[in-house]
Amino acid sequence: MAEKLSLWNDTPTRQAITQFVQQVTDASGSSFVPLAERVAVFDNDGTLWCEKPMYIQLDFILRRWVEMAQENPALREQQPWKAAVEKDYAWLGNAVTKHYRGDDSDMPTLMKGLLSAFSGFTVEDFAARAGEFLHTQSHPTLKRPYSQCGYAPMIELLRYLEANGFTNYIVSGGGREFMRPITQELYGIPADRVVGSSVSLEFREDGDGGDVLSQPHLDVLDDGPVKPTRIWSRIGKRPILAVGNSNGDIQMLQFANRPPRPSLRMLILHDDAEREFDYVAGAEKSLELAKQYGWTVASIKNDWKSVF
Amino acid sequence: MAEKLSLWNDTPTRQAITQFVQQVTDASGSSFVPLAERVAVFDNDGTLWCEKPMYIQLDFILRRWVEMAQENPALREQQPWKAAVEKDYAWLGNAVTKHYRGDDSDMPTLMKGLLSAFSGFTVEDFAARAGEFLHTQSHPTLKRPYSQCGYAPMIELLRYLEANGFTNYIVSGGGREFMRPITQELYGIPADRVVGSSVSLEFREDGDGGDVLSQPHLDVLDDGPVKPTRIWSRIGKRPILAVGNSNGDIQMLQFANRPPRPSLRMLILHDDAEREFDYVAGAEKSLELAKQYGWTVASIKNDWKSVF
Repeated sequence: MAEKLSLWNDTPTRQAITQFVQQVTDASGSSFVPLAERVAVFDNDGTLWCEKPMYIQLDFILRRWVEMAQENPALREQQPWKAAVEKDYAWLGNAVTKHYRGDDSDMPTLMKGLLSAFSGFTVEDFAARAGEFLHTQSHPTLKRPYSQCGYAPMIELLRYLEANGFTNYIVSGGGREFMRPITQELYGIPADRVVGSSVSLEFREDGDGGDVLSQPHLDVLDDGPVKPTRIWSRIGKRPILAVGNSNGDIQMLQFANRPPRPSLRMLILHDDAEREFDYVAGAEKSLELAKQYGWTVASIKNDWKSVF
Repeated sequence: MAEKLSLWNDTPTRQAITQFVQQVTDASGSSFVPLAERVAVFDNDGTLWCEKPMYIQLDFILRRWVEMAQENPALREQQPWKAAVEKDYAWLGNAVTKHYRGDDSDMPTLMKGLLSAFSGFTVEDFAARAGEFLHTQSHPTLKRPYSQCGYAPMIELLRYLEANGFTNYIVSGGGREFMRPITQELYGIPADRVVGSSVSLEFREDGDGGDVLSQPHLDVLDDGPVKPTRIWSRIGKRPILAVGNSNGDIQMLQFANRPPRPSLRMLILHDDAEREFDYVAGAEKSLELAKQYGWTVASIKNDWKSVF
């Protein structure tokens, strides 16, 4: 089976993956895991697709903020609309990096903008908008369509796991409704296996019909210690494999461990300025823990033959 | 395909089901629905299994309340523990019927007992307890093991739909974690396709591991207008088929309608005192709407050859 991971170099990382899969699928071995328990969870931003120079979803929201500021000029003097109109992306990127370092001082401002952006949209209208954006817009520096910003070695890994009886889920801090319109075609992961952050929803009756509408309230911020609780509420099982790339994934990786059952925890290390990006901001603590507990670290530079 | 519903009498109800399935699977017809959109949602209590003389989950909780009252005698003088110890099931049944009639006066008392019953349990310990109960205890009047209280014609319907490319989900007001340990074997519906009510969950770190624990707070009461929002958040699609049996299922049935796409909405009518139970309490409004909008009503007495 190892030869199937053709986009991964022959390194200890690939070996860790293939040995783990061999272990859990060997019905005669002591580490065998039945099909129904072969649950694998993947963060999305920075794990399955690019998250720099900014989250893909942020580009989507920035365009909506510009649209809102065009409709309502008063917004142009308020953050985060001001940053969107002036293309002051440093302010926004900084707010996120600060969050991962434990400083949430810009979060209320950011959240206000995020929560109001699509308030009152039906979930189906929102999905159509997100889908259209993802299928027509391109990454600002890589110049690739967003629909092709998934990491090819990770997509290959998803297929490899499926071929070995795993069921793959996305468990992302990103917006659930934003990702869903593209996860099936990009990753082969259907909408009901996408776990993410979300706003509250409300049903509006309409005779024999009705719509579900987005509300301007946060429902779930699917990050950090919330990830294991959402994994349980949505999947009802403890994963045996978890892959992430930032401090927000720590608890998800921890939760995947339940000795004596084997588990594989992996972090994607962004160390390839030439082919993708080179950064550890927001991932420092997770990389420390990887050393401490022996989690696998996949280096984009050394472990991946190609990135896209 | 019609002959596959062998436990259903040859009535307009069976005809409505088979005609609908034929319509949406006929690739050359104007009502064809692609595989990925063939989403079917089912209420559980009173739709897939018995809910009288009381919810099966209530029996489980009553035993826990008795256990709690044994450990803490002060609880014996407080509702709902008092009702549990004195086997005063009328008080409890009444509280639920009142709820479905719009009178929630007993709800705070009931909720306090429900939320404290398993507070602090890990989700895995809770699942083990619920699974053991469901696999070892029997229905008080039907004298059947709870694990055999699913309605055979409904289980047959689930298989028939699957064979026609549908994906089935449970969307129940009952407890998600309570149902999950038995839905795969009883209905062929895996844990991640069980949507239900739930308490809040919290992750407790434990070095390189950790547990998800039940908290004494309501997270979701998956009933009435909440059902469509939970269908969307968990599935990400609008169903084309919805089956329920009470006023709490009205909005779920409404939401399944999106013309010009065809839909099938069905209510199970409990009118068979001999083989199951005969009651409409808590279903009056849904039955009125069924008449008004032409929803299908399946009579247990007339439409089902056998019940179990």
